Amino acid sequence: MVLQHLVATNTEQSASYGFDTWSEQARQKIRLACHCPEADIFFLVGGTQANATVIDAMLPSYAAVIAAETAHINVHESGAIEASGHKVVTMPSHDGRIDARELDAYLKVFYADETWPHMAVPKMVYITFPTELGTLYQAHDIADIFDVCRKYDMTLYIDGARLGYGLASPACDFDMPWLARHCDVFYIGGTKVGALCGEAVVFPRHNAPDNFFTTVKRHGALLAKSRLAGVQFNALFTDDLYLKIAKHAIDKAMQLRQLFIDAGISIKDSPTNQQFVVLTSEQRQRLQQHVLFETWQPLTDDTALYRFVTSWATSDIDMTALTKAINCL
Amino acid sequence: MVLQHLVATNTEQSASYGFDTWSEQARQKIRLACHCPEADIFFLVGGTQANATVIDAMLPSYAAVIAAETAHINVHESGAIEASGHKVVTMPSHDGRIDARELDAYLKVFYADETWPHMAVPKMVYITFPTELGTLYQAHDIADIFDVCRKYDMTLYIDGARLGYGLASPACDFDMPWLARHCDVFYIGGTKVGALCGEAVVFPRHNAPDNFFTTVKRHGALLAKSRLAGVQFNALFTDDLYLKIAKHAIDKAMQLRQLFIDAGISIKDSPTNQQFVVLTSEQRQRLQQHVLFETWQPLTDDTALYRFVTSWATSDIDMTALTKAINCL
Amino acid sequence: MVLQHLVATNTEQSASYGFDTWSEQARQKIRLACHCPEADIFFLVGGTQANATVIDAMLPSYAAVIAAETAHINVHESGAIEASGHKVVTMPSHDGRIDARELDAYLKVFYADETWPHMAVPKMVYITFPTELGTLYQAHDIADIFDVCRKYDMTLYIDGARLGYGLASPACDFDMPWLARHCDVFYIGGTKVGALCGEAVVFPRHNAPDNFFTTVKRHGALLAKSRLAGVQFNALFTDDLYLKIAKHAIDKAMQLRQLFIDAGISIKDSPTNQQFVVLTSEQRQRLQQHVLFETWQPLTDDTALYRFVTSWATSDIDMTALTKAINCL
Amino acid sequence: MVLQHLVATNTEQSASYGFDTWSEQARQKIRLACHCPEADIFFLVGGTQANATVIDAMLPSYAAVIAAETAHINVHESGAIEASGHKVVTMPSHDGRIDARELDAYLKVFYADETWPHMAVPKMVYITFPTELGTLYQAHDIADIFDVCRKYDMTLYIDGARLGYGLASPACDFDMPWLARHCDVFYIGGTKVGALCGEAVVFPRHNAPDNFFTTVKRHGALLAKSRLAGVQFNALFTDDLYLKIAKHAIDKAMQLRQLFIDAGISIKDSPTNQQFVVLTSEQRQRLQQHVLFETWQPLTDDTALYRFVTSWATSDIDMTALTKAINCL
Repeated sequence: MVLQHLVATNTEQSASYGFDTWSEQARQKIRLACHCPEADIFFLVGGTQANATVIDAMLPSYAAVIAAETAHINVHESGAIEASGHKVVTMPSHDGRIDARELDAYLKVFYADETWPHMAVPKMVYITFPTELGTLYQAHDIADIFDVCRKYDMTLYIDGARLGYGLASPACDFDMPWLARHCDVFYIGGTKVGALCGEAVVFPRHNAPDNFFTTVKRHGALLAKSRLAGVQFNALFTDDLYLKIAKHAIDKAMQLRQLFIDAGISIKDSPTNQQFVVLTSEQRQRLQQHVLFETWQPLTDDTALYRFVTSWATSDIDMTALTKAINCL
Repeated sequence: MVLQHLVATNTEQSASYGFDTWSEQARQKIRLACHCPEADIFFLVGGTQANATVIDAMLPSYAAVIAAETAHINVHESGAIEASGHKVVTMPSHDGRIDARELDAYLKVFYADETWPHMAVPKMVYITFPTELGTLYQAHDIADIFDVCRKYDMTLYIDGARLGYGLASPACDFDMPWLARHCDVFYIGGTKVGALCGEAVVFPRHNAPDNFFTTVKRHGALLAKSRLAGVQFNALFTDDLYLKIAKHAIDKAMQLRQLFIDAGISIKDSPTNQQFVVLTSEQRQRLQQHVLFETWQPLTDDTALYRFVTSWATSDIDMTALTKAINCL
Repeated sequence: MVLQHLVATNTEQSASYGFDTWSEQARQKIRLACHCPEADIFFLVGGTQANATVIDAMLPSYAAVIAAETAHINVHESGAIEASGHKVVTMPSHDGRIDARELDAYLKVFYADETWPHMAVPKMVYITFPTELGTLYQAHDIADIFDVCRKYDMTLYIDGARLGYGLASPACDFDMPWLARHCDVFYIGGTKVGALCGEAVVFPRHNAPDNFFTTVKRHGALLAKSRLAGVQFNALFTDDLYLKIAKHAIDKAMQLRQLFIDAGISIKDSPTNQQFVVLTSEQRQRLQQHVLFETWQPLTDDTALYRFVTSWATSDIDMTALTKAINCL
Repeated sequence: MVLQHLVATNTEQSASYGFDTWSEQARQKIRLACHCPEADIFFLVGGTQANATVIDAMLPSYAAVIAAETAHINVHESGAIEASGHKVVTMPSHDGRIDARELDAYLKVFYADETWPHMAVPKMVYITFPTELGTLYQAHDIADIFDVCRKYDMTLYIDGARLGYGLASPACDFDMPWLARHCDVFYIGGTKVGALCGEAVVFPRHNAPDNFFTTVKRHGALLAKSRLAGVQFNALFTDDLYLKIAKHAIDKAMQLRQLFIDAGISIKDSPTNQQFVVLTSEQRQRLQQHVLFETWQPLTDDTALYRFVTSWATSDIDMTALTKAINCL
């Protein structure tokens, strides 16, 4: 559905570099969805690119960004943040989350140490929602972190690569407008929620850094044919498609949970579209013949944690296949 | 046509990060088209991104890249090359081209100056084909530049953002396999030759730098859903579509040239799909009501040079409109 | 004399990283000499280091610095400015100087071009005083450049590696307090004016960027035993030693000029301690047996321009040797 | 003594940028002391600068350096390593040391994870000798780490900011030639062992990276008047002054240990010139009136760990003062 719009628009001439009509319409719809009429919105291609560009743009050159040890920017971005000169300072991960009180305590100790000017100065906090481990922050968690950020003159950046799956989860106690009010910048992930590519970076209060467009270009992140992103986000933010897609994936994830629970197989508590299941190597081998999943973490000699991910594309046929496969274990 | 493949493949599950089947097929077809069975090929999203990634990967940190003053990397990439720490050292532009003898002379003087270790050391030459001004290098020009590169231990990188339009021009005296043999790395531009996005970086002799994949990721240039590029390049390199598209644009450009010449309007000699026309401000105003073009360079108080660009999408209807508009001047 | 202070202080314990008593005293004396009671002052070790640190600290990451083609940062710093991600955009050199009107015109054209956000945005102008060619700006030149900077929201940075020699020249029509009022930051060169090492970076109006100390550390530019610089600058700014040293070198340079002129040898008009003399290769060979100088630029097959530099250390004995050598030509 | 050489040489003319006679002599003496006749040796000004320059020069742009959590480059260099684009990947600290087996295990897991190309690739191991906590590696520890480095195609870099104090410790079971054979590059710290400034970077087997001089310049780390370092290192490596200075500090540290032990005050086991003492706040207040030391780490409400550092400058008078002060506790 998203793609059909791309084809339909292909023969039209259009402005480029983000000034096309579809991008402008998509921006308007996202502003409405966020209740942020003033928001500055930019469409980038991918998540690592969005992170590197936003962090570079918002930090002075000497500054560091604080993130959980498990954070995508710390583990799986090949040093893209350091590539623009910024240290990633890590905090303990609590199932993928950082804790506001620990953050506050860390900063108190940091500034109490008179050698702090010899250290990279933290000027941003980066969190992911949902986290890399499929967990969620509650509203009060984020509000508390945002308070600490303001106390220590830091910005709060929320990586929403899988934002839809977080907001659509029954365990989430806030919505997109609330999120937009409780951070300085976030991005709405398209790639992992039905788009071919594209992430919408939102500065909710017309607070994009000066010349952010130029920073985007400098990071090689400017799409010439920007309708590629614009058309997709326009579709995703029409009739709540974005949340419907996410909701579909969450529903399937909850069905999947139930299937494993009914079969007496241990599954971690997880409120989003990533589900982590404990399987023996024999169970793994049998299941692998029918469905796709990946090894997450070895547990014992014979058992390990495996990750099952549902998405907008997960169908009833997939679920039936899984049901049969589980029944044969 | 390219896009229809994207839609057709959308419901299939596919590997990501460049390992999908379409990308692999596209690579194989490009290897055939280049006569480079060993080539390492990577699909990136855009031109600035390709330039920044390739240059960063191939240069040691202290090294500079030599380019024409008019080079895209020097003028229109917002400092993306410097962003990864590399100086762009400029040579005079001869209608967009650098001259092999001037390059040789420059390097001779450079290394004769005993203070050269206090300067950024040139380790790469960057040229564009066609150039930013729509001009072409002849085979012997490139061969000579490549010789100078080998003499001074430098790599030669050819930016082919508009490569198709160069190869399809009647003024071009070589083909893609010849080009692949006369440089260390080049990219085949998709964005400007019919694709929604995508540039194919080719290391012709299995000479990609170590861990180039990681460098791509570090530059935020790795497409998660890599079939976006793979499907498009697969289509472009099936049945010579890439060159056919380019040939179409060149044919239209030559028609356009003739229209202006017949009308007695001055037009610069240009062998590719970019045509530069001298118009008075009155002529400009009249034409602008019917066709799109952009101001290139003021000439006198009343006249300026204007750029007309044809592409895969330029139709007979467009040409008819232009004909009528010119006749009314 | 400067060094004897270093030895005298060696057995004392002292605070480090710039907080030692000598550094504090030196800062106070420099504030007096500049009539800038509020100035922030930092001692760095060398010129390239000072340039890279100041430029990085004062520019946002996407921004460029404008400099003359002949500027030290463009030619002889091995890409140290680009190393922190900033493009050096060059303007024509007029004997080492940039011209305020050309600068204004350049910026007018820059911002008139609607593609400017695709370019590195100039946010600083860098000039050297004296220039790399030994020439000087007049007060109105600098005032005009400073006006253009304010018009286009740019900072003005003056590299004073040889500042003393400029201020001590009879051709200079301003003093250090005037200079401090007509730029945003400058440095007072110690290395080339009698110190073993050390450059004093001055932000005249308490306008050092936030956490500049941290940026200094991040550039590896923080001296642990900071009295090394403090003691030297303390001595240099006691009883006008800095200007006396410079005046001595200028006097010797003027004597040297006269010697060549009297001998009928062509010498470029130069108001500072760098003098450029036209010699035949035979003259060069004879002179080289007696005095040190370096080749600057070939002129014809047989003649070239040679640079003679006087300094605080140039003695009457040196001048006598030169006189004899010239008489033998 | 070191400084007197500086004064004595001040009126001589000398070559600069490392080519002066004193630097050349110092290099020759260091080669002898290391039994490395082929060593490439460069004198830099400070430790952070040496680390940033060496690591940048030896790593490809995409690569990371592995270090202990407590490593100076991770904690106290303001992000200088990240400033040139490199991630610091941390390993657990065992009293400041990393463990060869843990390192091996980490790398085994790293390369077993098929997503490793999405991570910064470790290409260097950085250790400090002595460590930041005053502890030492034994010969077999370093040999084992060096083996792991070769196994995984990484270089081993040893930061010897306090090298003398390590080699002079009775607990050290190797000497400088052994060290030079068991790493790829190390530096001999001058600043903390009697010099005003200066660190000698040693590539033991003529293995300096190409154009390392240019990298030094690019990092703002090139001393114009290089005899500043040359004269000092020449003195330090004449008649074993370097080790004598270090031995003196170690002797004083051992006396200091004994004083605290005799007074029944708890002191950590530490073999070098840094000694860590447990004091109550009352004890701290009394001692502070007589001697200088710094707070290291709070232990309980009333007690903390304090660091006492001896050096080449610690005199018998200092020790007498400390003895009296301790006796009054």
